[in-house]
Amino acid sequence: MKKRLLSGMRPTGPLHLGHLVGALKNWEKLQDEYECFFMVADWHAHMSEYERPQDLRRYTLDNVIDWLSCGLDPEKSVLFVQSHIQEHAQLYLLFSNITPLGWLERCPTYKEQLREITTRDLHTYGFLGYPVLQAADIVIYKAHAVPVGADQLAHLELTREILRRFEHIYKKKVFPEPQAILTETPKLLGIDNRKMSKSYQNFIALSDSKEEVGKKTGQMVTDPKRIKKTDPGHPKVCNVFSYYKIFKPEMEKEVHHWCTKAEIGCIECKKKLADILNGVLEPIREKRAQFTRHRSTVDDILTQGAEKARGVCVETLKETRKLIGLY
Amino acid sequence: MKKRLLSGMRPTGPLHLGHLVGALKNWEKLQDEYECFFMVADWHAHMSEYERPQDLRRYTLDNVIDWLSCGLDPEKSVLFVQSHIQEHAQLYLLFSNITPLGWLERCPTYKEQLREITTRDLHTYGFLGYPVLQAADIVIYKAHAVPVGADQLAHLELTREILRRFEHIYKKKVFPEPQAILTETPKLLGIDNRKMSKSYQNFIALSDSKEEVGKKTGQMVTDPKRIKKTDPGHPKVCNVFSYYKIFKPEMEKEVHHWCTKAEIGCIECKKKLADILNGVLEPIREKRAQFTRHRSTVDDILTQGAEKARGVCVETLKETRKLIGLY
Repeated sequence: MKKRLLSGMRPTGPLHLGHLVGALKNWEKLQDEYECFFMVADWHAHMSEYERPQDLRRYTLDNVIDWLSCGLDPEKSVLFVQSHIQEHAQLYLLFSNITPLGWLERCPTYKEQLREITTRDLHTYGFLGYPVLQAADIVIYKAHAVPVGADQLAHLELTREILRRFEHIYKKKVFPEPQAILTETPKLLGIDNRKMSKSYQNFIALSDSKEEVGKKTGQMVTDPKRIKKTDPGHPKVCNVFSYYKIFKPEMEKEVHHWCTKAEIGCIECKKKLADILNGVLEPIREKRAQFTRHRSTVDDILTQGAEKARGVCVETLKETRKLIGLY
Repeated sequence: MKKRLLSGMRPTGPLHLGHLVGALKNWEKLQDEYECFFMVADWHAHMSEYERPQDLRRYTLDNVIDWLSCGLDPEKSVLFVQSHIQEHAQLYLLFSNITPLGWLERCPTYKEQLREITTRDLHTYGFLGYPVLQAADIVIYKAHAVPVGADQLAHLELTREILRRFEHIYKKKVFPEPQAILTETPKLLGIDNRKMSKSYQNFIALSDSKEEVGKKTGQMVTDPKRIKKTDPGHPKVCNVFSYYKIFKPEMEKEVHHWCTKAEIGCIECKKKLADILNGVLEPIREKRAQFTRHRSTVDDILTQGAEKARGVCVETLKETRKLIGLY
């Protein structure tokens, strides 16, 4: 029997190339190895986007369309919206009641985000409990595995701590300890060489048109020391070159040669990259168009996903409620 | 149309005379004036009783049996168990996400309880959110009224603050502002003159037998200056006299006379009180015995109560989710 895996994304904006190479490509592969539950974490998104209800609604559906267009298969995996499964909220509440406040206050990512995110007021009760909701999300499926980035390891450790505390109090082992699947994923910078971010508007979205991709690729920052076309460039410092390595690795040598020998200029180099990116995005775009025309298909997928997910959650909660003494 | 009212109790122990005169008598009357929702707040109880699953399960049913035996009428009111209505947990989560952390940290009852309650570790994330869950409990029924003691006014004010913040963010008035029903209720001390409390075991439970009531009443502390039977007593400082005033007010003058004139001794005075208390408890006892024999009746009442309660909650949540932007 396959082991179970849970992962999710917060629907806070359009998905972009960073998501494609950082998560979606990986998820697509994991579908064959694990029994996968993929969740649109809309309650988690609400923690920071509570002042943007329009965006929240819009990107919930939009992200699922992207998932489907990038190869997530509802025949293989369970795709669902977190807030459709109230059981998550109940387990969150129960875990909240046994989680020491200090564990959350001392969580390094918590402090970091309060410091770094200045466009939203995150000094709320809910945001402090972010890792507790995450723990409930994972544990309610008795998931064995969670694909995470290195920055998320602290949260997963907190999930395990909450679990251990639960098992210590109720003297029973109910849940497997979820393990991280750490996948080496290429880090993609934005077109302005900064971290790819919604607030910088420096990403190429999976939903961007051919023209938009051409335009954005044209704006990419290359080697600042290569001023004239005849100057040799330095691929090492060129973001366009990193994109080639990720999206067309077989061309790496060739592009390196072009650049260092000043055989073609940056403008042409970027045009060629745009073609490559459009080649990657074209099949996704086609599927997006299809799903966007047939939204009810997507709704059906989410309804069926919610049913399957709920089936598992109800069982876990029954077991948990009994241990805790709820009538 | 009747206005709606919500109240609840935490199932942390057996109900006693303090609950009878402090809440249940009052609830019984309110049933005719309001559309009442009475809730066994088991999630709230779990916040402090998370290490006592047996008690939690036991007292959930036991308290409902007491409610029914004291005149709560499932034909008039909705009786239900909080944790049977997952919608409460969802609204709690949504309110958590917009409630500033400082409001909870500065809540006077929070600090007080952390200081005073030493037998349980309340330094948990969930316990900090106690007033947020309470807000969700009230608001999900769009309740107009909440019967509270003076010590609970701060919590109800917090509910209104959360509501106002919600309406400020989502620019819509959805819920009525719940108002406190402050009822003058007599304060009953325990048989040892301390505050009536489960941890002191100094109460007369509604489930106590005739003999237990006799024994406990016999242990009640009277005027310490009345050493011999012939010494005149001081009813003002006598706890037994307070009990007479509450449970048999028409005897107040007579008892005052007995005591100050040393006409009868404390032992006899307490025996007479025991008879009075047993007179009050006998009909409750009979009903308790009936419901205890027919537990399935109680289960049916709770199942029907949960259905009615859920009907209201589902509607409120639909409205709330739409405003917030959940898909």
